[in-house]
Amino acid sequence: MKRLWQHCHLATMKDGAYSTIEDGALVTQDDRIEWIGPRRAVPAQPYDETHDLKGSWVTPGLIDSHTHTVFGGNRSGEFEQRLQGVSYAEIAKAGGGIASTVRATREASEEELFAGARKRLASLLREGVTTVEIKSGYGLNLDAERKMLRVARQLGQALPLTVRATCLAAHALPPEYVGRSDEFVTYICETILPTLANEGLVDAVDAFCEHLAFSPAQVERVFQAAQALGLPLKLHAEQLSSLGGSSLAARYQALSADHLEYMTEADVKAMAASGTVAVLLPGAFYLLRETKLPPIDALRREGVPIALSTDMNPGTSPVLSLRLMLNMACTLFHLTPEEALAGVTTHAAKALGLAKSHGMLEAGKVADFIAWEVERPADLAYWLGGDLPKRIVYHGKEITHG
Amino acid sequence: MKRLWQHCHLATMKDGAYSTIEDGALVTQDDRIEWIGPRRAVPAQPYDETHDLKGSWVTPGLIDSHTHTVFGGNRSGEFEQRLQGVSYAEIAKAGGGIASTVRATREASEEELFAGARKRLASLLREGVTTVEIKSGYGLNLDAERKMLRVARQLGQALPLTVRATCLAAHALPPEYVGRSDEFVTYICETILPTLANEGLVDAVDAFCEHLAFSPAQVERVFQAAQALGLPLKLHAEQLSSLGGSSLAARYQALSADHLEYMTEADVKAMAASGTVAVLLPGAFYLLRETKLPPIDALRREGVPIALSTDMNPGTSPVLSLRLMLNMACTLFHLTPEEALAGVTTHAAKALGLAKSHGMLEAGKVADFIAWEVERPADLAYWLGGDLPKRIVYHGKEITHG
Ligand SMILES: [Zn+2]
Ligand SMILES: [Zn+2]
Repeated sequence: MKRLWQHCHLATMKDGAYSTIEDGALVTQDDRIEWIGPRRAVPAQPYDETHDLKGSWVTPGLIDSHTHTVFGGNRSGEFEQRLQGVSYAEIAKAGGGIASTVRATREASEEELFAGARKRLASLLREGVTTVEIKSGYGLNLDAERKMLRVARQLGQALPLTVRATCLAAHALPPEYVGRSDEFVTYICETILPTLANEGLVDAVDAFCEHLAFSPAQVERVFQAAQALGLPLKLHAEQLSSLGGSSLAARYQALSADHLEYMTEADVKAMAASGTVAVLLPGAFYLLRETKLPPIDALRREGVPIALSTDMNPGTSPVLSLRLMLNMACTLFHLTPEEALAGVTTHAAKALGLAKSHGMLEAGKVADFIAWEVERPADLAYWLGGDLPKRIVYHGKEITHG
Repeated sequence: MKRLWQHCHLATMKDGAYSTIEDGALVTQDDRIEWIGPRRAVPAQPYDETHDLKGSWVTPGLIDSHTHTVFGGNRSGEFEQRLQGVSYAEIAKAGGGIASTVRATREASEEELFAGARKRLASLLREGVTTVEIKSGYGLNLDAERKMLRVARQLGQALPLTVRATCLAAHALPPEYVGRSDEFVTYICETILPTLANEGLVDAVDAFCEHLAFSPAQVERVFQAAQALGLPLKLHAEQLSSLGGSSLAARYQALSADHLEYMTEADVKAMAASGTVAVLLPGAFYLLRETKLPPIDALRREGVPIALSTDMNPGTSPVLSLRLMLNMACTLFHLTPEEALAGVTTHAAKALGLAKSHGMLEAGKVADFIAWEVERPADLAYWLGGDLPKRIVYHGKEITHG
């Protein structure tokens, strides 16, 4: 099916910039972009369909490159308790915090996990997200991690959405391994990762490098096991303290290091050298009332690609909007709207190892794009919340969300 | 038409608290709530319709009590320039800032203003807003202020939405009055207010009390003119500095004083004594990267009702989501989810002089309510952005937004 899409302006996001084509057009052949350029140069050929985009601005489909969308339970009660003055320690003592999510996730059926995640993903889909990464990490044993990753795969089959599944078994220490974290890492490296990779459930491997989670030495063991399986790497690093996780990620040529508030100048240089993407998570920064900013100027100066994501999770970032992260990146981190948009398109694709096929408007790329009824691309970051009118094209087909 | 709504929990928001009825029911007669209580006590009588709310949580319809939704133009370009490093002064010199909105609003037709505002209100309606206040204040002459208020009235007629129109002619000094602010105040008091009030376009009168706008003495002249016309008062006060505007508002028994970051202990006491509502605007606080918090503890201690609003405007608060303000009030101002919900229901109704008819679930009140598919009311503040599944009932009738 050959389709012509015209009467629009294009923010192609090539090279991480708007790279605008005014009064442009796109030709799609099935699920791919076949041609892109100014409307006056549209190839004269028969089209099966012609779409009038009525002066809208077209961007690549949005990519949310770091989420924990699949989980059991709900922590709004805990959110409320904290604001009523109950301390983190009291909540943890009562079985709250991540332990409650692990418990609820282990108890939930695949169907329940699917239904909950689908409901949350509906918000992202409505606002123009066409690719999402989903991590495991609330199962913390073979069966429950498998269950989470199977649900991630099912979501990708059921929805007009490309899903990348990341195994984050090294997210937290499960209660049955307290005091034996090295043994848990061995279990991850020797059992969880090889089994789930063999079942085709793992697109990348992630870990949480932090005092309250895993040490750089433990993360390195996970990385080595993942590399032996040929799997790309990601890392939660430098969120609460500086442990050099991002330099470690760079040394292992990881796709991305994520969070990064406490990264050093040396970490930035290491990531620049390895081409590792910095995934910033302004929602978690905002919700934790963090004051230490990630080193934006250094990242810019050294040319580290910056991606932005919701970090959607029930504890520190119950964020249901990726576009909101554009505004938060501008307001809290002082990114420009153009940098912010690159962070959910070009650079987000790179953070998922999808740079060849996704993240910009270019001949040969997958035809995922959004036609926004806005005056200029900066409107995506400018408007805070709400629903911007748009048309969504996924794999060359226009879709509507209820 | 008599309707029964059951299988739900009710957060009635009486007295500004959840005032929960578990497994409750509502009976509506046309556009009013006729009965509310536990399901087992539902009056045995014939119903024209029975609705199963499937275990959802019902709250009053949300009320956005402070918006500048009607305006011409768009300032996303300016937002982008600022993040690229252009100074406020340079932007103002180039005709930007509020001056550009005044120019665009004066130039726009009623149809254009209506279309723009309707598009923005669509986001609020979708998330469960059933009452909204809309201010003039970008016209700054008789004809353009009239045009804005007429559009506000038309929006209330065209949409399933109760609109309260506030005349904010004392918003800024128009270019033709530079150096003659007292004369402009005279023009407001002697021409704009009486004319527009006489035309039935004004539900309340507001002013902006700030160094860069109008002095307390000038505001007092506006208040006296409004009172002579029998119109209730509101005031933008203490946003950037402490001028005692909120005490002035209290002295004139204003419905509300709004913003209030820089209010003093004495201001709080004065507002408590007069029953004036404190309307907090966390979106503007966040977008201006303000660090001075409004005195929440003092407001609580003295029993000043706290409302929350989007302040939707193109300059300092292009906010399209009222629910997002719940999260921002909790995260930035440390309100509890319950206080936040009262701020967009009971207390917001009071800030608009609608406490008798709106803002809580009670027999005799208007039947505006939302049935949320959530585990508990705190979910409304907990989830950041996105679209929570819900059913919306306006004036007793269920409505759907495309
Ligand atoms: Zn994460
Ligand atoms: Zn305002």
